[in-house]
Amino acid sequence: MPEPLVLRRTDGAVATLTLNRPKAYNALSIALMEAILDELADLDRDRSVAVVVLEGSGRGFSGGHDLKELQANPDVAFRQRTFDTCTKMMLAVTRLRQPVIAKVHGIATAAGCQLVATCDLAIAADTAKFGTPGVNIGLFCSTPMVALSRAVHRKQAMEMLLTGDVVSAQHAAEIGLINRCVAEDQLDAETNALAAVIASKSRKVLKTGKEAFHRQIDMTLEDAYAYAGSVMVENMGYADTDEGIDAFIGKRPPLWSHE
Amino acid sequence: MPEPLVLRRTDGAVATLTLNRPKAYNALSIALMEAILDELADLDRDRSVAVVVLEGSGRGFSGGHDLKELQANPDVAFRQRTFDTCTKMMLAVTRLRQPVIAKVHGIATAAGCQLVATCDLAIAADTAKFGTPGVNIGLFCSTPMVALSRAVHRKQAMEMLLTGDVVSAQHAAEIGLINRCVAEDQLDAETNALAAVIASKSRKVLKTGKEAFHRQIDMTLEDAYAYAGSVMVENMGYADTDEGIDAFIGKRPPLWSHE
Amino acid sequence: MPEPLVLRRTDGAVATLTLNRPKAYNALSIALMEAILDELADLDRDRSVAVVVLEGSGRGFSGGHDLKELQANPDVAFRQRTFDTCTKMMLAVTRLRQPVIAKVHGIATAAGCQLVATCDLAIAADTAKFGTPGVNIGLFCSTPMVALSRAVHRKQAMEMLLTGDVVSAQHAAEIGLINRCVAEDQLDAETNALAAVIASKSRKVLKTGKEAFHRQIDMTLEDAYAYAGSVMVENMGYADTDEGIDAFIGKRPPLWSHE
Repeated sequence: MPEPLVLRRTDGAVATLTLNRPKAYNALSIALMEAILDELADLDRDRSVAVVVLEGSGRGFSGGHDLKELQANPDVAFRQRTFDTCTKMMLAVTRLRQPVIAKVHGIATAAGCQLVATCDLAIAADTAKFGTPGVNIGLFCSTPMVALSRAVHRKQAMEMLLTGDVVSAQHAAEIGLINRCVAEDQLDAETNALAAVIASKSRKVLKTGKEAFHRQIDMTLEDAYAYAGSVMVENMGYADTDEGIDAFIGKRPPLWSHE
Repeated sequence: MPEPLVLRRTDGAVATLTLNRPKAYNALSIALMEAILDELADLDRDRSVAVVVLEGSGRGFSGGHDLKELQANPDVAFRQRTFDTCTKMMLAVTRLRQPVIAKVHGIATAAGCQLVATCDLAIAADTAKFGTPGVNIGLFCSTPMVALSRAVHRKQAMEMLLTGDVVSAQHAAEIGLINRCVAEDQLDAETNALAAVIASKSRKVLKTGKEAFHRQIDMTLEDAYAYAGSVMVENMGYADTDEGIDAFIGKRPPLWSHE
Repeated sequence: MPEPLVLRRTDGAVATLTLNRPKAYNALSIALMEAILDELADLDRDRSVAVVVLEGSGRGFSGGHDLKELQANPDVAFRQRTFDTCTKMMLAVTRLRQPVIAKVHGIATAAGCQLVATCDLAIAADTAKFGTPGVNIGLFCSTPMVALSRAVHRKQAMEMLLTGDVVSAQHAAEIGLINRCVAEDQLDAETNALAAVIASKSRKVLKTGKEAFHRQIDMTLEDAYAYAGSVMVENMGYADTDEGIDAFIGKRPPLWSHE
């Protein structure tokens, strides 16, 4: 029996998905992307999970699309299906109930870099490398660009896209692509600590906030405020808000409803 | 007679508004927000003022909304009024004739952090702390998010919003939330120096530029250029522009009209 | 015979345009902007050029618009024509087939700073200075603001616009206005190295990617993905993509078609 393409483990309210094609640098074949989509659909219904960590097995996070698969299927329909599935996966990360943390070691390139840019948060080993090298093989990283150009400033995105060069984790942190980089032997501990902080919050409130973030970001200022104001009013009606304020005033830890 | 909720002092063309609920960390009660709105409406008509500084009295800038007031008024109408008034205040800062500088010491959290993000410029003591801790009490900082996510990159905004942790003034400067932090005993001097530079400009031109900034930022590139080009042409017809260019060529200080 | 307002030299696939009004700090007179537009129109048709470098002759990159020309022609029609021509030039840089690198020494101020913000990439000498000083002469840098506020965060753009102060190349790199600054005597070498990296790519693919970048950046996330996905599928049909992937797998340098 073959190994599953995505591994899932759960530790308390933290679920970890591991891209599991270590011999192929976790290349995003259609089968792997569909396996991720299945896991995300499952997690989206799971109210016991507060936060999701995404990592790669083997030597790196992900090298992007599966070029061998694309070469073996040189018809337009297969290509369209590849990029449609990829976009569906990226949007599923953005729309997932839970915040998603990318935990990056080794390389995160092309659609792998896009996945990091798409996650809500990212921590990397200081030895990790990021890049959008499609231009080197005649295939511009146009879909990774969508996520990258919304995560960092334009000139910094353009340099990665036009040169195809990899950048260090330190540079990625400086330009805003990741939250921070840490010593390689601290990557597990730092990611777990960040996940634990988020897992201590109300899951319903995390869902409310994440969804509102992504909805308001493309609106004009006025529209964003009208929308976010209504989200606040609705949020104040949650049982978890009563509990949270009461716990805060009583200087005790809150007991969330896990609705 | 109680102290006013907002103090106002004027030094030349620099007006300073001080949030004045020091015992409540300048919590933004409806009364305080309405007092700020009154002051801003008044300043917006005052052509003797070139720049506004916003600061907090007591131990910090502002801890955000007044939770006690919100708890004492648990009806939807009061909550809606709170967030409507808050949005009105934030938009009044953005639309004010004069540029607004946030001068931050102590804490600036939740709607207090939003106010800093909303001001045109911000200087902080290096001991100041910033945060959007609503998630800790079950009330996601969805309205602060509108301003925060337009001031800094997405991952850095998300980390503040999802963890609820405070960040240092140094970090706030690195991610772009403030312009810079300075030694605590230099905060007055540095803010005054920045305000004085802006106060030396034509007030009419400052108004033109600030208004154009906020209008063009939500437009497409082509629309923004069409609009900004027309602003430039109109600006060139100002008496202050003739005076400014003439003074520049004559290597003398300009004498603005104070229209 | 007078010197041309713009010099052009070509080294392999790298074209360099030199603003050539050294005695006027390369002030952007209508004639100079039209000369740049002519060169850009010509380069846009030239498939032998992969990348364009833009530099200034003499003591700096460019001091912005030609104030003397504007003063000598104080009619609204001339002003409108000046800003229309300027916008046309900026959009021509953005829409040019080839990526454009600003190579900055000395000053880049007002529309000169706008030109740097508009280029896809920028490298500067560490002695270079950037600014939007229009406010100092009563003419707010409203059109430079369009490019500046899309290149860096809002507070950092606002500080430059409202104070009129110049900032160092180091600061410009930190806020994202340029890609990096280098020692003055390394500016040629570093720019050439960056240009050479880009010149080694498929010109057709560079065009595809640059065009897609600027088109998707103003779209919502969903629209951007739908568009970028279709660009990817079309890109995979290029002969250069077959060649690029084949060369990559064969561990040999690609031979682009130069379509």
